[in-house]
Amino acid sequence: STTFELDTNPHRRLNILTGEWVLVSPHRSKRPWQGKVEDLANDNRPEYDEKCYLCPGNARADGEVNPAYTESFVFKNDFSALLEDTPIYSANEDDLLVANTQRGICKVISFSPKHNLTLPELSLQEITAVVNLWKKEYAALADNDWIKYIQIFENKGDIMGCSNPHPHGQIWSQSDVPMEVCKETERQKNYFAIHRRSLLADYLNLELQKDERVVYKNEHFVVLVPFWAIWPYETMIISKRHVTSILHFTQAELSSLADSIKVLTTKYDNLFECSFPYSAGMHQAPVNEGEHNEWHWHMHFYPPLLRSSTVKKFMVGYELLANAQRDITPEFAAQQLKALSAQHYKSLIF
Amino acid sequence: STTFELDTNPHRRLNILTGEWVLVSPHRSKRPWQGKVEDLANDNRPEYDEKCYLCPGNARADGEVNPAYTESFVFKNDFSALLEDTPIYSANEDDLLVANTQRGICKVISFSPKHNLTLPELSLQEITAVVNLWKKEYAALADNDWIKYIQIFENKGDIMGCSNPHPHGQIWSQSDVPMEVCKETERQKNYFAIHRRSLLADYLNLELQKDERVVYKNEHFVVLVPFWAIWPYETMIISKRHVTSILHFTQAELSSLADSIKVLTTKYDNLFECSFPYSAGMHQAPVNEGEHNEWHWHMHFYPPLLRSSTVKKFMVGYELLANAQRDITPEFAAQQLKALSAQHYKSLIF
Ligand SMILES: O=P(O)(O)O[C@H]1O[C@H](CO)[C@@H](O)[C@H](O)[C@H]1O
Ligand SMILES: O=P(O)(O)O[C@H]1O[C@H](CO)[C@@H](O)[C@H](O)[C@H]1O
Repeated sequence: STTFELDTNPHRRLNILTGEWVLVSPHRSKRPWQGKVEDLANDNRPEYDEKCYLCPGNARADGEVNPAYTESFVFKNDFSALLEDTPIYSANEDDLLVANTQRGICKVISFSPKHNLTLPELSLQEITAVVNLWKKEYAALADNDWIKYIQIFENKGDIMGCSNPHPHGQIWSQSDVPMEVCKETERQKNYFAIHRRSLLADYLNLELQKDERVVYKNEHFVVLVPFWAIWPYETMIISKRHVTSILHFTQAELSSLADSIKVLTTKYDNLFECSFPYSAGMHQAPVNEGEHNEWHWHMHFYPPLLRSSTVKKFMVGYELLANAQRDITPEFAAQQLKALSAQHYKSLIF
Repeated sequence: STTFELDTNPHRRLNILTGEWVLVSPHRSKRPWQGKVEDLANDNRPEYDEKCYLCPGNARADGEVNPAYTESFVFKNDFSALLEDTPIYSANEDDLLVANTQRGICKVISFSPKHNLTLPELSLQEITAVVNLWKKEYAALADNDWIKYIQIFENKGDIMGCSNPHPHGQIWSQSDVPMEVCKETERQKNYFAIHRRSLLADYLNLELQKDERVVYKNEHFVVLVPFWAIWPYETMIISKRHVTSILHFTQAELSSLADSIKVLTTKYDNLFECSFPYSAGMHQAPVNEGEHNEWHWHMHFYPPLLRSSTVKKFMVGYELLANAQRDITPEFAAQQLKALSAQHYKSLIF
């Protein structure tokens, strides 16, 4: 080999949002797989399950009964990782043992009363209702002046640690800004200070010009595989307009966001014709700690599947100890996702 | 609740090696688990498997035949993520698309000719042979002046992405220093500049005084659950002597290291009476880039199991998007591991 090719030679790419590198080994996708094969998730669920704590009319762990809700529904997590009522504490022994309190409020959002659906199977109107509820909850949580960050996310599929297949997401809000958001704040701040434009606005323009990694776009949002993606089919949804959080989206933008989520998650399901697992969530400006003009709202999707509906990418030894690593290139993943239909494969079976 | 308790109230702890925080939610271990249950790994393997590319006398992917080896055995990975012969490349488009070549050499080390054993089941002498081989390979790879870092690691168990149960580990060496090592270098450098002692030497002294998180110690090494552990039963092996890499260990220290690995992995197997999965690896000074007096050799063990041999901790939505999070406290994990026998449970069945 004499000239370097991004699609064949091993290389590193910089994640401009975190400042961390990812190792890309394109030639390695030819490696045979004799390792773990996942069970296919059971896709035949009833519309209502009497044992599900998210179905309408059922009782939850704390004894409360869910209302007979018809769209989405939100409540405080019965097993919250963070609690509002936590005493103040801060310790530092010789800079070696350092700890402090963390207060927070954790919520669960059911996306639909129907136990057997997932986001891509909901109607555009139903997904828009979820997006509207995210905005409403974000605003309400931000009203607590001690809350500094609000993480909206979804774990989909049991291989992503989801313990209930009823379509739902979570919101964890807390009294300090979490690590990943700190990293992205710093990088965006630096860029904004120099260019007076948001990092992602400039990145988005470049991606739209190149058109190599763009998967889908509508009036207000672009779905793409970032140049520095770690997970095989990792994507980002980026708003065309530079806004710091979901609070600033107009109703037209909120519907447009719902559309981009519907199209992306449908393409995901179509890729291996299965209910495609992922963890996804929004990144946005911290709250109650002054201006964050540098922040540009976006949403990350981290899906683990690599080769098929049952073979995932393992982030293990080298990845945990040394550096994130991927095999297929982001460009290859983007081309595949772009080519897939926006019509759900299940709706085509007759 | 009026006074704060580390073992009941949610809080954050600082990883002094990376500068990153971990969220600890001790109260949350009471949460019921209805999620994914892993298959138990098949523990009944033959001593020799004709289809295994690591067994003595078998042919590998490239056609080469393994010798009839009797201790450990090393060879170049047939599906290396990094290659020696990679053209030079470096690109930077507006600080938005940034990439560069990565060259490297990847090796595989079989720990034993016997297909059905794992590290804790090898004799002290056999583990010492593995440790000696690590040192030898480290020295040989460091002889290539373009190699800047050498990552020695093991993925154990199929839930840690291990595709062959034959006991083995890997070495990935490369032309740039990987992310996690950069973080640890920076923190150790800062500490060393101020105190003229290594960060881990001072940390180790404090841990030995407190004796709350120490799992095991012998003449030259201490096994402990770090104050900032992320994985439920995460541990570190730290050398009592401040040395920058495995190259500086005496033969007495190498045997002592083998002993601490044997005891720790035996305790792990005894915890849930199963072949305990983990990713483990050494962190040591970068090579061929000048002095690294700040570096203090250590080894991390990242095991995923949380509640039993089939229920693991999932690092998913909140963890990937926001912050590392754990439920049981490091102190609880350390007490459990400390109390366990150093005699393998299988050797007690008669
Ligand atoms: O090299 P192996 O054992 O085939 O592969 C395993 O370890 C690698 C290094 O941690 C990972 O990149 C792979 O995802 C994992 O399956
Ligand atoms: O809150 P859940 O759905 O019970 O739990 C799931 O999501 C959490 C947040 O990412 C993780 O900490 C858990 O490991 C995972 O199983």
